Amino acid sequence: MYSYSHLFDFTSLLLQKMGFSAVDAEACARVFLAAELRGISTHGVIRLADYFKLWESGRINTTPNIRIVHETQSTAVVDGDGSIGMLSAIKAMEIAMTKASAVGTGWVAVRNSSNFGIAAYYAMMALERDMIGFACTNASPLVAPTFSAIPMLGTNPIAMAIPAGNQPPFVADFATTPVTRGKFTVASKKGEKISFGYAQDAEGNPTDDPTSIECGGSMLPLGGDREHGSHKGYCLGAMVDILSAVLSGANFGPFVPPMMSYLPLLEHKTGEGWGHFIGAMRVDAFMPVGEFKERMDKWIETMRGTRPVKGQEQVLIPGDPERENEKRISREGVELLPQVVADLEAIAQKTGIKF
Amino acid sequence: MYSYSHLFDFTSLLLQKMGFSAVDAEACARVFLAAELRGISTHGVIRLADYFKLWESGRINTTPNIRIVHETQSTAVVDGDGSIGMLSAIKAMEIAMTKASAVGTGWVAVRNSSNFGIAAYYAMMALERDMIGFACTNASPLVAPTFSAIPMLGTNPIAMAIPAGNQPPFVADFATTPVTRGKFTVASKKGEKISFGYAQDAEGNPTDDPTSIECGGSMLPLGGDREHGSHKGYCLGAMVDILSAVLSGANFGPFVPPMMSYLPLLEHKTGEGWGHFIGAMRVDAFMPVGEFKERMDKWIETMRGTRPVKGQEQVLIPGDPERENEKRISREGVELLPQVVADLEAIAQKTGIKF
Repeated sequence: MYSYSHLFDFTSLLLQKMGFSAVDAEACARVFLAAELRGISTHGVIRLADYFKLWESGRINTTPNIRIVHETQSTAVVDGDGSIGMLSAIKAMEIAMTKASAVGTGWVAVRNSSNFGIAAYYAMMALERDMIGFACTNASPLVAPTFSAIPMLGTNPIAMAIPAGNQPPFVADFATTPVTRGKFTVASKKGEKISFGYAQDAEGNPTDDPTSIECGGSMLPLGGDREHGSHKGYCLGAMVDILSAVLSGANFGPFVPPMMSYLPLLEHKTGEGWGHFIGAMRVDAFMPVGEFKERMDKWIETMRGTRPVKGQEQVLIPGDPERENEKRISREGVELLPQVVADLEAIAQKTGIKF
Repeated sequence: MYSYSHLFDFTSLLLQKMGFSAVDAEACARVFLAAELRGISTHGVIRLADYFKLWESGRINTTPNIRIVHETQSTAVVDGDGSIGMLSAIKAMEIAMTKASAVGTGWVAVRNSSNFGIAAYYAMMALERDMIGFACTNASPLVAPTFSAIPMLGTNPIAMAIPAGNQPPFVADFATTPVTRGKFTVASKKGEKISFGYAQDAEGNPTDDPTSIECGGSMLPLGGDREHGSHKGYCLGAMVDILSAVLSGANFGPFVPPMMSYLPLLEHKTGEGWGHFIGAMRVDAFMPVGEFKERMDKWIETMRGTRPVKGQEQVLIPGDPERENEKRISREGVELLPQVVADLEAIAQKTGIKF
């Protein structure tokens, strides 16, 4: 078990070693550690090795000039200057909230960015200002649109955070696929099959083989197959890709560059880096905050209070499982897989930082 | 087969007979007929009988004062004054576009409304002004959140329309369930089963019985079961409900009133009528329109150009099937089920309008 402060300090020092300022390094470390606390370990310190290697191969700008390149009173386009996704996404949400303060809502499309970790982090930034936060991002192609034999879209997650009163906030954060890529890796390592409805093979046939993606297969959109509404999951992934990348000037669809340093950059570009789309809406641009929070409490209590199906205690509110994780992991510490520890120790040795 | 103009005139005259002004009646008739042309006959003239009966029982205000009750530069809350959903949704999109013209984006939450037909109609209004259009609505409870044995949310559809250049626009419009309620009715009438993953029985067990909903069962959210991501479909339906109703002051979740005159109004209210959430974003609030449209063309051509799975011609772009329907039905006319014809003839006789 590793303590929050141990992993936070290591992450921050490592990023500073890579050239990020102390302020930027700490801002990023907060996002990595938020993923660990919320139990989304696939987006936590396990990713540090990837970013480190990307930096070693010169693919991350650690002294970025993240800036607005176009704006109106309620919108902006931000250029992330080829840096780590967390920095441009935080800046984008800050801009969105400033605009929301002024005119009610703010919407920021980001280009020239990269993987930003968990989308919920940025959506949740809005909560403390009594705003509704929204964040989504495109990502490297893994998902086949309905009827496609080829992966053309990322798992393109969507997050929305909505403040409540006495109840904890509503925080949805989900990939637009039935499960995350991480489930495939785990099943593969355990020698287990995956459920049908998660993937197809290189010919587009349904498969339960977790290694199918490495063999030319694809993940499937939320819905799984046409009969169960995969075209709706495809619509969602496409909407995220268009808002994040077509509208911002980033690479879209199959042109999103890989985040693994061992994968070559693509020959064809349709923009700069990865794209995000981030928004904030002031609650009191619609109704008094107190009234809204009472209504949200009532909404949450209504859902929690309904009769559950047999074997379940109650209906969950989006954000409940992550909040439970946060309580437990804050207390018990973060558990890391042996391979992650080995990776971090290797980086520690290389950089002279103590792990 | 019935011609567009025949059904348009009948719909408009009927609505005028109910007390709507000629301008309002024609505006609504355009939405009903758009549903027919796009092949979404579940939202077309089949619904006229329901609205007519609602009006007979005094549940529709045909001379509404639809008005802004709260606003900022980029937001508004509109009170639909208990009228037919089409009128408040059209007005809401007009307000959203006016605000987008001024400050880049406009977002309008609507309360005290009712069923508005197809969401795509309002999203598509934005296209002619080179804006991205968004529309969603809550609806009477039919869908059980993950782990709930009871229907607590509507099928809560989401629509987004995005302009392109030489290519037709991207138009997504989908319920946040695997299939629409209409599929259940059709299967039931034909004596067929439905697929597992669409519904659960009154105890929350998976079922393939299309009559399950009438027997205390529920529709399932997009994803179908927890293993296939139904919690994500639940998140989507919840987000629609909160934006449409908690934020506007409409009834939310299980409190959304029925649209069938034979169903009693609920004792408990959490607001006024149904809620919608409608938005418009000016493309040139992010990048020059010409550049964006070229990028959208490239996005669409990229998706269409990918290798399809065996047995499919090509990947479709959201909006393609409806556009094909529109071409065919404009040419061939609208086909109505005998029961729909009988209903409309009965109303014609009652009102003295020729069908």
